[in-house]
Amino acid sequence: MTTLTILNPPGSPVPDRLTELGRRDDVDVRIVTADRLGEALPGTEVLLLWDYFSTALTEVFDAADELRWIHVAAAGVDALLFDELIASEVVVTNARGVFDRPIAEFVLSFVLMHAKSALGSLADQREHRWNRRSTRDLAGTRALIVGTGSIGREIARVLRALGVDVSGAGSRARTGDADFGDVIDSADLAAHLTGVDWVIDVAPLTDRTAGLFDAEVFAAMEPHAFFVNVGRGATVDTDALVTALETGAIAGAGIDVVDVEPLPADHRLWEAPSVIITPHMSGDTEGWRERLLDQFLDLFETYRAGRPFAHTVDKEAGYVR
Amino acid sequence: MTTLTILNPPGSPVPDRLTELGRRDDVDVRIVTADRLGEALPGTEVLLLWDYFSTALTEVFDAADELRWIHVAAAGVDALLFDELIASEVVVTNARGVFDRPIAEFVLSFVLMHAKSALGSLADQREHRWNRRSTRDLAGTRALIVGTGSIGREIARVLRALGVDVSGAGSRARTGDADFGDVIDSADLAAHLTGVDWVIDVAPLTDRTAGLFDAEVFAAMEPHAFFVNVGRGATVDTDALVTALETGAIAGAGIDVVDVEPLPADHRLWEAPSVIITPHMSGDTEGWRERLLDQFLDLFETYRAGRPFAHTVDKEAGYVR
Repeated sequence: MTTLTILNPPGSPVPDRLTELGRRDDVDVRIVTADRLGEALPGTEVLLLWDYFSTALTEVFDAADELRWIHVAAAGVDALLFDELIASEVVVTNARGVFDRPIAEFVLSFVLMHAKSALGSLADQREHRWNRRSTRDLAGTRALIVGTGSIGREIARVLRALGVDVSGAGSRARTGDADFGDVIDSADLAAHLTGVDWVIDVAPLTDRTAGLFDAEVFAAMEPHAFFVNVGRGATVDTDALVTALETGAIAGAGIDVVDVEPLPADHRLWEAPSVIITPHMSGDTEGWRERLLDQFLDLFETYRAGRPFAHTVDKEAGYVR
Repeated sequence: MTTLTILNPPGSPVPDRLTELGRRDDVDVRIVTADRLGEALPGTEVLLLWDYFSTALTEVFDAADELRWIHVAAAGVDALLFDELIASEVVVTNARGVFDRPIAEFVLSFVLMHAKSALGSLADQREHRWNRRSTRDLAGTRALIVGTGSIGREIARVLRALGVDVSGAGSRARTGDADFGDVIDSADLAAHLTGVDWVIDVAPLTDRTAGLFDAEVFAAMEPHAFFVNVGRGATVDTDALVTALETGAIAGAGIDVVDVEPLPADHRLWEAPSVIITPHMSGDTEGWRERLLDQFLDLFETYRAGRPFAHTVDKEAGYVR
């Protein structure tokens, strides 16, 4: 018998396919919201964080007396990791792979909107103004993708397919990477931005990446360059980003994540020039919850069969290596 | 000695590289605007329509006593062709190839803006509203490209590289096309729109395609489908398009060309729902005029050397076959 606790977001229906797990003879399912997590943990062997932004586990982890595996139904696990969990034997898995292609397409939409001057065209359209002008080619430009995990790799493949020269930045410098070719150490980012047209942030949030995109980095970007963030908002100094946009240090930005979400209605980023803001949805294409369910149910069968997971989170690093 | 007449747009400087042709011993260059074309034609052997939208030649073609070759610095030649020219021995070339990749990227920007709900996000952004929602995958969708010339082929290749299932519509049905696989006869368009997510019009304007996209075609499109026009505005019944957008018969449109350009400020297309309007600029990326010049100068050397052109316009058909 495996006791599975499902942490569900408040006010959200539990998917039938999760509820139905409880009908099995070999699974005991407990479904709770964050306020009841502590009561459900004793005896729990598997914890599914369907409420993937929740930080509730930190407070009640002492009650996790039999916990062996946590699955987070999200790509980023920064909201989950805390010292006691990292030090424990508990295995953590995430939604690796599910969001790769959707996010890569979303990044491409940001990039092409900038290359083809979409904000300018839409502003002209609102004024009923026929204002012919030149735009930019995507083919032949250069992108630096910060974050060399599975999402970053898919972004690299998509951009390369369109003739973009791609390189990467990660936790250690290397050459000969299959998707990126050259990878620089992201600590040296500011020294590698000359000639880069697209700086794409898909880095996990870790001690190394928190605040990585600061005033120095934006100052080192080309004035015609465009910044994309589909990773974690806290990797960016948002004030420095706004200043970079307002002063023309960079040409624009596509921002799907911010350090405080939802972005407060009175935040000045909303009105910064040449910024496109979307509400943390780059990976959420129709059917995404079903795909997350499929993935968890597959992993659950792997676990029940005593087989190893193909990918687990390196808890010290803060992401899947 | 070759007499080359260059038809230049009024008020526009003549590129130095064209003026410099006149320094050659073997070339006599005449540079005129449309009002003086008739005076320049007698003795002219080569005519460059640098003013590529001009229809001035129709009126003065009788004066073309030695004309052998016309080059139009544009992809579409519909503004040029008239019965006497078609019946004549004069060879016509166009800017085949120059705009292929830029236009394919532009089409992709339209398609991704729709798939990723960019208009919705930008409207939310103007209201400072954080409105999370699902968008659509591009991979796995279906596109029908109407127009199987070099631009349509590049659009097909770009979309295929991103996992889109592509087929074509042209002047005759066929199978096994290298870029399109199946090609339907564009006269049967309305019967082939079920399941098609993206209908992309890059057809040349000919007797067969004028008004091709009419109320019947829009009614046959899927309610979730998106229409793109980067070809010629007169292939579309614009009133029918506006009605299709207003009634939800189609989900949106990306419109770079219209039947009357510039689109009049009081035209109702400007305010139609879910439409993105751009001012006939899909192919115009930085350096496009230089690329057009390069192409003409290459063709001019070919002509002077007495070698055949790789591609000429089929004047009866109205495009390069």
